[in-house]
Amino acid sequence: MQWQVYLSGEIHTDWREQIAQGCQALGLPIQFVGPVTDHAASDAAGDLLGVPADNFWRDHQSARVNQIRTQTLIQRADLVVVRFGPQYKQWNAAFDAGYCAALGKPYITLHDADLVHPLKEVDAQALAWAQTPQQVVELLAYQCQGLSRD
Amino acid sequence: MQWQVYLSGEIHTDWREQIAQGCQALGLPIQFVGPVTDHAASDAAGDLLGVPADNFWRDHQSARVNQIRTQTLIQRADLVVVRFGPQYKQWNAAFDAGYCAALGKPYITLHDADLVHPLKEVDAQALAWAQTPQQVVELLAYQCQGLSRD
Amino acid sequence: MQWQVYLSGEIHTDWREQIAQGCQALGLPIQFVGPVTDHAASDAAGDLLGVPADNFWRDHQSARVNQIRTQTLIQRADLVVVRFGPQYKQWNAAFDAGYCAALGKPYITLHDADLVHPLKEVDAQALAWAQTPQQVVELLAYQCQGLSRD
Amino acid sequence: MQWQVYLSGEIHTDWREQIAQGCQALGLPIQFVGPVTDHAASDAAGDLLGVPADNFWRDHQSARVNQIRTQTLIQRADLVVVRFGPQYKQWNAAFDAGYCAALGKPYITLHDADLVHPLKEVDAQALAWAQTPQQVVELLAYQCQGLSRD
Amino acid sequence: MQWQVYLSGEIHTDWREQIAQGCQALGLPIQFVGPVTDHAASDAAGDLLGVPADNFWRDHQSARVNQIRTQTLIQRADLVVVRFGPQYKQWNAAFDAGYCAALGKPYITLHDADLVHPLKEVDAQALAWAQTPQQVVELLAYQCQGLSRD
Amino acid sequence: MQWQVYLSGEIHTDWREQIAQGCQALGLPIQFVGPVTDHAASDAAGDLLGVPADNFWRDHQSARVNQIRTQTLIQRADLVVVRFGPQYKQWNAAFDAGYCAALGKPYITLHDADLVHPLKEVDAQALAWAQTPQQVVELLAYQCQGLSRD
Amino acid sequence: MQWQVYLSGEIHTDWREQIAQGCQALGLPIQFVGPVTDHAASDAAGDLLGVPADNFWRDHQSARVNQIRTQTLIQRADLVVVRFGPQYKQWNAAFDAGYCAALGKPYITLHDADLVHPLKEVDAQALAWAQTPQQVVELLAYQCQGLSRD
Amino acid sequence: MQWQVYLSGEIHTDWREQIAQGCQALGLPIQFVGPVTDHAASDAAGDLLGVPADNFWRDHQSARVNQIRTQTLIQRADLVVVRFGPQYKQWNAAFDAGYCAALGKPYITLHDADLVHPLKEVDAQALAWAQTPQQVVELLAYQCQGLSRD
Repeated sequence: MQWQVYLSGEIHTDWREQIAQGCQALGLPIQFVGPVTDHAASDAAGDLLGVPADNFWRDHQSARVNQIRTQTLIQRADLVVVRFGPQYKQWNAAFDAGYCAALGKPYITLHDADLVHPLKEVDAQALAWAQTPQQVVELLAYQCQGLSRD
Repeated sequence: MQWQVYLSGEIHTDWREQIAQGCQALGLPIQFVGPVTDHAASDAAGDLLGVPADNFWRDHQSARVNQIRTQTLIQRADLVVVRFGPQYKQWNAAFDAGYCAALGKPYITLHDADLVHPLKEVDAQALAWAQTPQQVVELLAYQCQGLSRD
Repeated sequence: MQWQVYLSGEIHTDWREQIAQGCQALGLPIQFVGPVTDHAASDAAGDLLGVPADNFWRDHQSARVNQIRTQTLIQRADLVVVRFGPQYKQWNAAFDAGYCAALGKPYITLHDADLVHPLKEVDAQALAWAQTPQQVVELLAYQCQGLSRD
Repeated sequence: MQWQVYLSGEIHTDWREQIAQGCQALGLPIQFVGPVTDHAASDAAGDLLGVPADNFWRDHQSARVNQIRTQTLIQRADLVVVRFGPQYKQWNAAFDAGYCAALGKPYITLHDADLVHPLKEVDAQALAWAQTPQQVVELLAYQCQGLSRD
Repeated sequence: MQWQVYLSGEIHTDWREQIAQGCQALGLPIQFVGPVTDHAASDAAGDLLGVPADNFWRDHQSARVNQIRTQTLIQRADLVVVRFGPQYKQWNAAFDAGYCAALGKPYITLHDADLVHPLKEVDAQALAWAQTPQQVVELLAYQCQGLSRD
Repeated sequence: MQWQVYLSGEIHTDWREQIAQGCQALGLPIQFVGPVTDHAASDAAGDLLGVPADNFWRDHQSARVNQIRTQTLIQRADLVVVRFGPQYKQWNAAFDAGYCAALGKPYITLHDADLVHPLKEVDAQALAWAQTPQQVVELLAYQCQGLSRD
Repeated sequence: MQWQVYLSGEIHTDWREQIAQGCQALGLPIQFVGPVTDHAASDAAGDLLGVPADNFWRDHQSARVNQIRTQTLIQRADLVVVRFGPQYKQWNAAFDAGYCAALGKPYITLHDADLVHPLKEVDAQALAWAQTPQQVVELLAYQCQGLSRD
Repeated sequence: MQWQVYLSGEIHTDWREQIAQGCQALGLPIQFVGPVTDHAASDAAGDLLGVPADNFWRDHQSARVNQIRTQTLIQRADLVVVRFGPQYKQWNAAFDAGYCAALGKPYITLHDADLVHPLKEVDAQALAWAQTPQQVVELLAYQCQGLSRD
């Protein structure tokens, strides 16, 4: 059994690589996917269609172009990991979590203990809260235990 | 035709009252609902069941108790208005927006122009972005135009 | 049993009034709803939120504001009547028909015989094709036959 | 990750080939599908079952035979591109767009700037509006960026 | 609590009246609905739209007109009773049962013991098999037991 | 706003009455529904259709007759309360909880602390765990706070 | 693109083989599946679990065992062909058609012209009516036209 | 055709192995999956995230971690077998059955005759009740009969 895991949220640290490498080291049958994580490219995703005069609509156009990918990959995923870092608003991460909750798509969160209170509604629907990428790797290893790799 | 509108998000200003009073002044056939907006009561919503020893689980328990109401009322609503104020993380508001998006439930956002960039993914699925409660009232008046009140 | 019927499409003739009056004359228990049919108001529906610099985004904003109403009313309706007149592109009417088809929402079409060929995909999912408002009235009267009015 | 993209709409120019060749040149892992684009064959799709005496029912029968394919392929697709050319009514293309909207299936449109106003309801639910096949190729290349080809 | 019950199938005996009168005698809070049971009117339901030259398409048109009503009323119903009599093919009744099964809509069957074997697939998804209208009345009375009438 | 609450599970104590009376004393706008709680009547629910020779099929027939009511009432409910008492297997209560979980229907559990471990999977999807009927009353009162009674 | 086609209905003639061989001769990328067509084995499908004393429950048990397969295969299929022969009640075939209709699963019918009237409700939701296996082969060949075989 | 079968319930006997070996001996194209069946590991599944101070929340955390796997595997399965043994509460097994019922996912039960009465609601939605692993093997062999192995 092959798992597909979508890694949503923070793009300024290497948490995605830590999880992917940790799972690879264990030989887990997991394919990781996620959004485009090049910040500038993501903000400009719609510019190839023409740059709107208003900032709002430029952002709107790029965000909708990005949703082609995020909607498709989240709907295909078996599990979504939503990461909140110490900086920035990260409303897109909370939006993805709400999106998963309504779809009945399992998700877990990854954040430090000092974000527990403001994330309580997001965590309340998550199937787990992890504090480190290593914990996520262990959780994923547990899920794969005893399953055939085919 | 009676509309039911859920007012999600910020609880520290009187934007809910402004919208409700503006619609009432126009005689619009709209019923407004929303979360419990007493901050302390909301944080303690689960305490009557016993107070967990860990902060995480106390928050978790209260957040789940609150979701009995928010899930039911959002699913019943015809439209959701999601308000982001200038302060706090407000991840619950972004979570509600993502929840609406996945359900195909129409929602609009209400926030100042300086939040446009961090809210771009949330706005990208919204059917409108308003900057003032008065604009929301006008939008709602437009929706009701020419419909029987029965 | 009360029926709710959504009248979609052409806004330049009085077909909506003909159907409503015909049904009222027969005392049928039907409530009719539809989009805002004031053309100028509909095109400007989003302008109260600020007028975008680009025509595309002005249209986009107004169209999304109108979809708050059309999505809600179509989802509530028992039956949708989609009218195509002799003029204009009327892609919004075909869009509404496709929207109904995917939802499994019953719809019928109302158009002249010379539009049969270009509308064949739209008619192929419709439960009936009528050529006159009077035929629609008769169809609706048939649906109500023998049902209690409560 | 393999993408499946459905190409809906206009059948009188080579836009499908342009997109397919552009993506092939970039080595993108995308499979393109679409309706039968031989106009005469499509109109006669149902004739093998017997030709109805009335034109309406001949069109009806062929359109329903074609929907076996279009419904199946649209439901399987990750993304739908809906093309509107300068000629003809093309209500089937708008119908496909509405069908996608109700399913929550991501779609984008491809049309010239002079069709912006009549297509505003169709564009309002699209995740992007492109004006050239080359823009579609670039959009698709962006979606595939950084994803494994397996 | 008010129940809505759809009575599907045979139209040549008075089983619908027996059930309705039996429930009325007990004062049960149930509203009964069903198809148009005037055989000739039902076969001619589409003729007001013009009579197709081919018998197949005349039947097709009338059957689709009837489905406006049957689809709507079955989807609204809390329970469907499907009656099979001793005569005729009655494929429409079995079709309604399959339709209910896929929707997860509770249905029961009403037929004599000599139809048990050919109806085994239909009965296998039914929540009950009754042999007389009086049994259906008793079943419905049981369902209402102890519920408030509001 | 009127709430509908389904009370599932144990039928040997008066917990339903305690909750209903507690809510009535507070004037909460809640309608309570539930299964038929007369044990003998429930076991014999299908006997009016003829008593099967095998015990398994007698139980099967009665259980399916009861599901006409339970499925309908659970699907209509805003919230389900699932009660586990100290005795009996009560697999039907756990079944109802799983049914709610898959529907995305909010439910809470009501049981003593010594059942926490064997009920952990049931509680894991519940939005709250209460130990007394009085706690359920307080939870419901909280949900209704600040909502109009219309 | 590989198609999966479910062949439902009559089991006393070789129509399934005719369709499969016709498609194989054309090299169409179609996998055919269907129910167990050994009549005696199908009627006895549940007997291995013990033979119920009542005929009704023996039929019931076997029919439910068969539905494990039919439900799974119909839900996986891209298209269902429902065959009605000149003999027997064949209510299971009409049941499968209704099941497909409610799922939005495309189906076509295969029957002689003298069954048109009693099958009008079944045909009304079918995407095509064929009279011979050869016509079904041609229809399927048309669906596969121009699609890659991968 | 490959089947995926989820084996839910009792973890203290070797019924899973008996079914898997029986099917392997017959060369059936079935992949079996299930929960983590190491009791201690399952109870401690969440402990790697930190051990909550309260027993209730420790159980809650572990149960939610386990649901990542069970929800995903049940939703992917073609059939679920739910086993009830002679000991323990086994509410999780009944919960899985209710979960399947609401999803429309076919499931069968496996238990001794003395559990028939308390399991009547669970069996009432099951497509079969087996008493031995060997019967399950025979049932599965029947399902695969005549299907291609590809």
